[in-house]
Amino acid sequence: MAEKTFKARVTVRLKNGVLDPQGKAIEGALDSLGFDGIESVRQGKVFDVEMQATSKAAAETTLADMCEKLLANTVIEDYSIMVG
Amino acid sequence: MAEKTFKARVTVRLKNGVLDPQGKAIEGALDSLGFDGIESVRQGKVFDVEMQATSKAAAETTLADMCEKLLANTVIEDYSIMVG
Repeated sequence: MAEKTFKARVTVRLKNGVLDPQGKAIEGALDSLGFDGIESVRQGKVFDVEMQATSKAAAETTLADMCEKLLANTVIEDYSIMVG
Repeated sequence: MAEKTFKARVTVRLKNGVLDPQGKAIEGALDSLGFDGIESVRQGKVFDVEMQATSKAAAETTLADMCEKLLANTVIEDYSIMVG
């Protein structure tokens, strides 16, 4: 089957309840800069992937596999995948 | 005016043309793991912010200001803001 190029975005975030010291540091820095009313900041990662696949579903399956094996630490992180 | 809590997502990515060694390393690692057909990987950052603001427009303005001052290095990075 012919392969097409798909653009995907994978977002990896810390699970709820997992401490995010980087996010806390940003909260503190925003407060120091005079930004009021910040309740919380959590930092995550985003991966923009261009890949060959036979279909959108195939691309999603491959990306989930990549997340499990490399892109996310599934003990403490959740991932979401958007293809299209 | 009464303030409400808004949830926002700020995505910060390297501008096109800016070298992304981290993305290249991930491409190499995915290749080593046997993933074929990866054309490119670019890594960025995502910030999930909960904040008080009087309106969605006010929240967007504040977030853009945060990006300019702290969250993004606008020389090499672009940012996008989603409130709601």
